Amino acid sequence: MTIRQTMTTPTASALSFTETLSLLSLSIASLAIIANTFQGDGAPLVASLAFSGLAFASSFSMIRWLGPTFMKAGLKGKDMSKVHKKEIPETMGAVCAVVYLLIITVFIPFPFYKDIVAATSGGGNRDVVLETIEHVQNGRFLHRFPHSKLASYLSAILTVQSISILGIGDDLFDIRWRHKFFIPGIASIPLLIVYFVDFGVTHIVVPIPLRPYLGELLQLGFLYYLYMFAIAIFCPNSINILAGINGIEVSQSLVIAFLLVINDCYYLLNPYPHPATDSHLFSLYMLLPFIGVSLALWWHNWYPSRVFVGDTYCYFAGMVFAVVGILGHFSKTLLLLFIPQILNFIYSAPQLFRVVDCPRHRLPHFNARTNLMEPSVTEWQYPPKPIVTLGLKVLHQLHLLRVTINEDGTITESTNFTLLNLWLVWFGPKREDRLATEILIMQTIIGFLGLFIRHNFALLLFEKDNLSVL
Amino acid sequence: MTIRQTMTTPTASALSFTETLSLLSLSIASLAIIANTFQGDGAPLVASLAFSGLAFASSFSMIRWLGPTFMKAGLKGKDMSKVHKKEIPETMGAVCAVVYLLIITVFIPFPFYKDIVAATSGGGNRDVVLETIEHVQNGRFLHRFPHSKLASYLSAILTVQSISILGIGDDLFDIRWRHKFFIPGIASIPLLIVYFVDFGVTHIVVPIPLRPYLGELLQLGFLYYLYMFAIAIFCPNSINILAGINGIEVSQSLVIAFLLVINDCYYLLNPYPHPATDSHLFSLYMLLPFIGVSLALWWHNWYPSRVFVGDTYCYFAGMVFAVVGILGHFSKTLLLLFIPQILNFIYSAPQLFRVVDCPRHRLPHFNARTNLMEPSVTEWQYPPKPIVTLGLKVLHQLHLLRVTINEDGTITESTNFTLLNLWLVWFGPKREDRLATEILIMQTIIGFLGLFIRHNFALLLFEKDNLSVL
Repeated sequence: MTIRQTMTTPTASALSFTETLSLLSLSIASLAIIANTFQGDGAPLVASLAFSGLAFASSFSMIRWLGPTFMKAGLKGKDMSKVHKKEIPETMGAVCAVVYLLIITVFIPFPFYKDIVAATSGGGNRDVVLETIEHVQNGRFLHRFPHSKLASYLSAILTVQSISILGIGDDLFDIRWRHKFFIPGIASIPLLIVYFVDFGVTHIVVPIPLRPYLGELLQLGFLYYLYMFAIAIFCPNSINILAGINGIEVSQSLVIAFLLVINDCYYLLNPYPHPATDSHLFSLYMLLPFIGVSLALWWHNWYPSRVFVGDTYCYFAGMVFAVVGILGHFSKTLLLLFIPQILNFIYSAPQLFRVVDCPRHRLPHFNARTNLMEPSVTEWQYPPKPIVTLGLKVLHQLHLLRVTINEDGTITESTNFTLLNLWLVWFGPKREDRLATEILIMQTIIGFLGLFIRHNFALLLFEKDNLSVL
Repeated sequence: MTIRQTMTTPTASALSFTETLSLLSLSIASLAIIANTFQGDGAPLVASLAFSGLAFASSFSMIRWLGPTFMKAGLKGKDMSKVHKKEIPETMGAVCAVVYLLIITVFIPFPFYKDIVAATSGGGNRDVVLETIEHVQNGRFLHRFPHSKLASYLSAILTVQSISILGIGDDLFDIRWRHKFFIPGIASIPLLIVYFVDFGVTHIVVPIPLRPYLGELLQLGFLYYLYMFAIAIFCPNSINILAGINGIEVSQSLVIAFLLVINDCYYLLNPYPHPATDSHLFSLYMLLPFIGVSLALWWHNWYPSRVFVGDTYCYFAGMVFAVVGILGHFSKTLLLLFIPQILNFIYSAPQLFRVVDCPRHRLPHFNARTNLMEPSVTEWQYPPKPIVTLGLKVLHQLHLLRVTINEDGTITESTNFTLLNLWLVWFGPKREDRLATEILIMQTIIGFLGLFIRHNFALLLFEKDNLSVL
C-alpha cells in the first residue's frame, strides 16, 4: 500500500524506488536459483518456482513501462464505474501472455534435461534414452519427463500462443460476440491435432453405476475430441463473461490456479510412483509461471484499476486451464473448479442466446452519487412476449431476477442476467471492490467444496483414484 | 488484369464474381484432394500442395475482406510514391501468418499419420511404432516422418508463431530499429531450445582444405547455437531492409522460396534413400503453404499496392526461411540464396551503424513530375568528418554512391545506402514496378548461380554432397 502511495499518479509509467529494489532482488534470487538448479543434478520444480518469480518481476515492470506505449497505439479504455472516468491502458493481458510464453519455453530444458545428456553422448541417436529413464526417476525433485512428452508440452505452448495471437486480434478489431465465441476453438487445434498424432487414447473409464450398460472402458473416438474442443471453448469464454468490474477477471483466474496447484500438490505428496504424478507435475510447470504473471497483472488491475486486462487475458487464462486439464487428464476436476463460471454461463444464457435483449455491456451500473454498484438493467421498449413475461415474472418470484412492472402490469425493465448483477439483487448495492471480494470468497468456498467431493466421493463412481492411462 | 479492372475502387473489400468463382473452385478442388489423400494410403506431398491451394484461397479472401477492419483499427499507411497519396491497409502480413500457421498445424497428421495407427492400436504404447517405420518407407510419395520428428516440426511452428506475435507488436508500437533488430532472436528461442533438448548435434563437417588443421568433424557446441541464432536474426532483418517500394518484400521472398523448392526437388529426384530426403521433404511442407499465402499477398501488394505487408510479413517470411535452413541442415545453401540481401546489408552498414546519418525512411524518392523513382539522399547539414568525406568520395569514384559537392568542395548530400538507390544511381530513374522487376531478375539470376555453385563445386570442399547427420 505504501508503495502505491509513493507514486505521483496512478498511471505513472515508472517503477518506484521500493518497487525497483524488490523486483531486482526477486529477479537476482530467481536467477541464482535457476543457475544452481541447472548446474546440479537438477530440481525442475524448484526451477519452475524461480522462473515464476522471474515471470512476476518482468511482467510487473513491463506492464508499468508499456502503459504509455499501449495508450499511444490506441489500446486504451475508460473505466465507467468511477466518478472520474479517465482512460487507462487496455489489453495488458498481452504482456502477461508474451512473458509467460517466453518463460515456459526457456523452461523446457529443465524437465527434459536428462534426456539431452543421454542423447548427445550418443551423437544424435536417441534410442539410448529409453534405457536411462529408469535411473532418472530416483526421487521426487529429481523427477523428469520422458522425452516422448516433449511434443505434448510443445502443443500446449502452441495452443496458448495461438489464443494469445487471436485474443490480441479480438482486442484490436473488437470482434462480435457470436464470432468470438469460437476463437478459442480455433486456438485449440494444435492441441487436438498433436493429441491425435501423439497420444490418440480416446477411451474413458465408465462410472461404476453405468458399467452394466456400457462396460468398463468406453471408446469415445471422435466424441472425445469434441469433448476436448468444448472444454477449450468453454474455459476461456466463461472467464470472459464473468467480467466487468475491476480485478474480477484476474482474481477469479488466480483462485482457479491456486486451487489447481493445491490439487496437484495433493498428488505429489502421495506415495511416489502414482500414475498421475507426471500429469500433475506438468500442470504445476504450466500453472506456477501463470500465477507469476497474473499476480503482476492483478497488482495493477485490482480496484482502482490502473490497467485493463483485455479479452486477451481472459482467453489466455482460460486456455492455460483447458490445456492443463486436457493434457493432465483431469478435465472433470477442472470443471468442478469452474462451477461459478458454469452457473454464470447458464444464468446468462437467456441473453447470450437473445431470448432477452442483450446490450453491448452488461456490467453492473455505477451510481456516482452513492459511489456504489447497482444491478444494471435492460429496458423493454416494447413489452416482452407473453411467454417471456411469464418466465421473467417467475424468475422474479424466485429471487433470481428483479423486474420493474408499470401500472399496466407490463415489464418495463429487468436486471441483466449475470452473476454479478444477481449478487447485487440479493445483497444490495455495494462498492466495486467489495463486490469483487465477495464473489471471490464464494468462488473459493465452492472450489474447496468441489475438491473435497472429488477426493472423497469419487470412489463411489470409480474404483480407484486414477487410471494409469499415461 | 481484367479482374482488377472490374473492381470499382482499388480498396474495395469485396471479391469480384470471377474471383469468388476461381477461389471457390480452387478451395473445393483442394479439399477434394485432401479428403482423398487422408482416406487412401496417403501422399503427404500431394496433400501439402492441396493445403497450399487452400492457404492461397483463404488468405486472398481474408486480405480483401479485412481491409476496412484493419483501416478502422488504425493499421493503415500512406503510399508515398504515388501522385495521389491515399491510405491503404497495413500489416496484411499478419493475415498471411495466421492462415499459414493454421494450415501447417492442420497438416500435421498427414506426414505423421502412419504412426498414429500403430500407436492407437497399441493403446497409447508408442514403442510399437519403432518397428513399423521400416514398412512405411516404401515409396517416395508414401514417405512419412518418424514420430521423433514431431517435436522439431512443432518447434518450427512455435518459432514462426512467435515471430508473428512480435511482428504484430512491432507494427502496432513502431519499435525503434536498434531494438527491433533483436526481435527475431527472441522468436528463435523455441527453435534453439528444442534443438538443444531434442537433437543436440553441434558438430560440423570440416571443409577438406581445412582438415589438416581441424580434423574431419569439429565440435562447435555453444558456437553452433550462436550460429543458428545469427541466421534467425539475419534472415528476417535482411528482408526487412530490402524494402520500401511496392511489392519488393513479397516478391523477393517468393523468389527465395521458389529457389529453395527447386533445390528441395533436386534431392527428391535423386535415387531414393538419400540421407537428406527427410530434411528436404520437411522444407517443402513448410515452403509450399508459404508460397500459397505469399502469392495471395503479392496479388494485392504488387504495383500499384492495394495493401501494405508490414514488418510482420518480412519477419514471418525471413523466419520461415531460417527455420527451414536450420532444421533442414542446409543453412549454407540458404545463405547462397540471400546474396542480394547480404550485399544490401553490407552496403547499408554505414547508415545502420550511424557512421553516416540515417533518416527514418530510406526508400527511393518519388518524382511526381516524371512519375519515376530517383535515388533518395541524406542531406549533410554540417560537412562530414574528413575521414567520412574521403570514404564517400572514394565510393563516388567507384560508382557505389552519388554525392553532391558544393563550390567549396564540401559534400552537401549523398544518396542513401540501399541496393535500390544504388540501382537507380547506376541505371537512372525508372518507374516503381520497373525497378522492382529488375531487382527481382537480378536476384533470380544470382540465386540460380548460387545453386549451380552449390551442387557442382561443393565436392571440392566436402567429399560427399551430404552427411547423414539426421
